[in-house]
Amino acid sequence: MTRRFIVVGRAATAGGDFLLDDLPGTSGRLDVLIRCVRPAFLTSHGIRRDVVVYLVLLGGARAPRVVRIEGADVKFLRPDERAVATLVKKVLASHSDDVGLGFVLVKPGISVARGGLDLALEDAHGSSSPLFVLEEGASDLRDAKELGSACFVIGDHLGLPEDARRRLAALGARPVSIGPISLHADDVVTIVNNELDRAENGGGAPKPD
Amino acid sequence: MTRRFIVVGRAATAGGDFLLDDLPGTSGRLDVLIRCVRPAFLTSHGIRRDVVVYLVLLGGARAPRVVRIEGADVKFLRPDERAVATLVKKVLASHSDDVGLGFVLVKPGISVARGGLDLALEDAHGSSSPLFVLEEGASDLRDAKELGSACFVIGDHLGLPEDARRRLAALGARPVSIGPISLHADDVVTIVNNELDRAENGGGAPKPD
Repeated sequence: MTRRFIVVGRAATAGGDFLLDDLPGTSGRLDVLIRCVRPAFLTSHGIRRDVVVYLVLLGGARAPRVVRIEGADVKFLRPDERAVATLVKKVLASHSDDVGLGFVLVKPGISVARGGLDLALEDAHGSSSPLFVLEEGASDLRDAKELGSACFVIGDHLGLPEDARRRLAALGARPVSIGPISLHADDVVTIVNNELDRAENGGGAPKPD
Repeated sequence: MTRRFIVVGRAATAGGDFLLDDLPGTSGRLDVLIRCVRPAFLTSHGIRRDVVVYLVLLGGARAPRVVRIEGADVKFLRPDERAVATLVKKVLASHSDDVGLGFVLVKPGISVARGGLDLALEDAHGSSSPLFVLEEGASDLRDAKELGSACFVIGDHLGLPEDARRRLAALGARPVSIGPISLHADDVVTIVNNELDRAENGGGAPKPD
């Protein structure tokens, strides 16, 4: 079962033209998306091979772009924010404007494509896997069914654009929330992964002897 | 009710002598602790005033040191890792070796003291609040009682030192785990905060109308 996260950055720059020393101030808050990568893939003892992340970049002159990271193939993923930002910067810089449509593999497990949320949804969602959208005040993730192989769409600090909401509603995306207090996108990824870990392992933590 | 997190860095440098451009490689993995600050304090719409974080730094020539951050008073806390690292670096650099014992206020809500886990425990734990220690394979946090005003002790990527484990056991710390898969310290903070949010708000997310 593959877990998929689509994180939408309303102003996150698609051009790779940001400063590593001032990520929040120069990237349209791409840092919010960058921080989702570590909890999506890294555990204490390894890497989640069953996760795919889509960073949807809707800001800057070259927008829209989607960066896709596949846990099955990705290499050299480090936990610190600067390392992930460096990786994404290189990936974006390597993607020239004259390539065709569809995802282009740039590094092991990391691809980039021209397109926005629709492209990510088409690639991620397929026809059968359940689609969830994170929303403040929606029903509890802990009560959700069919979490296996689900796709989760998460907004950035500005929330999802209105046209994205409409598109997701039309696709039958189910609104869920992660608790009574709204959290940053990366915390949402952490909590969703934890819930899916529990669902796949029969509920909670192992009982002590 | 105040939530307290004590994060122990076995080799994390107490001297502020690290490079912001290579935090993981130059700081004894202080980055692991730095990344706990954002999820401890920041929500989508504000700052958690009811949280206190202790970073216990056991590495480097000036160790041990404890950096204490109090949500009630802290200002200018930004979400990106580099900004938090810059703050901690300044705080450590400002703390000279000739100060006396006890916490010294360096910036609003941020203090530093000479000492290790015992000092943090003494300041954080008091005599009445429940003490928890995060442990792989321990019983489920979701089954834990008396989460209000609790103090949580979390190890870094190397886990807690053996003497710290013995000390915590002697204090009656209750082992808990956050799920079937062991996660980074910052993910643990995210999940504990979410569980406490739920406990304080009557269970889960608000029910949709």
